[in-house]
Amino acid sequence: MDIADLQRRLRDFAQARDWEPFLTPKNLAMALVVEAAELVEIFQWQTPEQSQALDAPTQQHLGEEIADVLMYLMQIADRSGVDVAAAVERKLLMNAQKYPETRAAS
Amino acid sequence: MDIADLQRRLRDFAQARDWEPFLTPKNLAMALVVEAAELVEIFQWQTPEQSQALDAPTQQHLGEEIADVLMYLMQIADRSGVDVAAAVERKLLMNAQKYPETRAAS
Amino acid sequence: MDIADLQRRLRDFAQARDWEPFLTPKNLAMALVVEAAELVEIFQWQTPEQSQALDAPTQQHLGEEIADVLMYLMQIADRSGVDVAAAVERKLLMNAQKYPETRAAS
Amino acid sequence: MDIADLQRRLRDFAQARDWEPFLTPKNLAMALVVEAAELVEIFQWQTPEQSQALDAPTQQHLGEEIADVLMYLMQIADRSGVDVAAAVERKLLMNAQKYPETRAAS
Repeated sequence: MDIADLQRRLRDFAQARDWEPFLTPKNLAMALVVEAAELVEIFQWQTPEQSQALDAPTQQHLGEEIADVLMYLMQIADRSGVDVAAAVERKLLMNAQKYPETRAAS
Repeated sequence: MDIADLQRRLRDFAQARDWEPFLTPKNLAMALVVEAAELVEIFQWQTPEQSQALDAPTQQHLGEEIADVLMYLMQIADRSGVDVAAAVERKLLMNAQKYPETRAAS
Repeated sequence: MDIADLQRRLRDFAQARDWEPFLTPKNLAMALVVEAAELVEIFQWQTPEQSQALDAPTQQHLGEEIADVLMYLMQIADRSGVDVAAAVERKLLMNAQKYPETRAAS
Repeated sequence: MDIADLQRRLRDFAQARDWEPFLTPKNLAMALVVEAAELVEIFQWQTPEQSQALDAPTQQHLGEEIADVLMYLMQIADRSGVDVAAAVERKLLMNAQKYPETRAAS
């Protein structure tokens, strides 16, 4: 997946619908958490074990919610000047320093 | 960004820390919405206009939250067998059908 | 509103529908954030000013979401042994100590 | 708990700190979901069974998050003109009609 390409397509999509004035980072953050909660809703009454064995319609529904979260996330990054790939690399490094490995070397 | 590569790195990271038993889709969905809300927190008292002009430390903070959301989202997809790129293409098509363009052709 | 009475009614409601096994604090916390996000959805594309002047149908919709959040919150407290009124008093005190008054005495 | 009294105290608290301009329903909805997610965070890596047997410090922490959610919820209702007790009664009635009892009469 090419992030810059996806962001460009989402920008074109919004412009063609006159949505630009609504797409501030503040509003997009609200939309993001709404979509994240719709993903949570799929699992709310499931056991952890059930959540590991979705049937096909639920997996498809999950795919739609994942796409919604990702698309709002990419729009927030785009409109805030955040380089997503660089932010991920930085966070991976921070996490590696914060959480040492516990598995014994083989 | 190569999604499959990121997912493999996150799987290795979790295995090296004995986190695997915790990383069910149900638990990861909870972690996702927690991180999405931490992103919301950045903007909660800002005006929409302020959210469009972040200072450098806030932009860096936002980058960390974007990375956190993205990494949990990719782990949910990985552990649920969802093809992220395909899900995004399908959702873009659904949105294009649902929301007709309003901009006059030039 | 009598909290203990509301909690008792919600318990009776769940028992009469065989929902008890699902109503763990973990699951109820997921349901809570889903309802909180449905409340957020009402305001996501509104300006702060618009959110202060809801029309009647939106106000009614908001009332339903407020009730949903409150009812899950009271069930979490009930099933975790938390005394809501005492927790609120303690938090009000903590906040008063954390945030000194800024208004000049008259 | 007297809802009108709590709402009055929260209004006085905000006025004494010059917070009024920030406390629009839109902003309060964001704060609400942030606090709901902090409550979710308590349970995210727990099993459903563990969430039913909290130790004393976790129960105290949960009480603080419950209070935070409740106080933002009451401020949203107050600033939107929603009668909380009436909204709860209406929602209980809607739920009773939507979900018939499954328990056999004894």
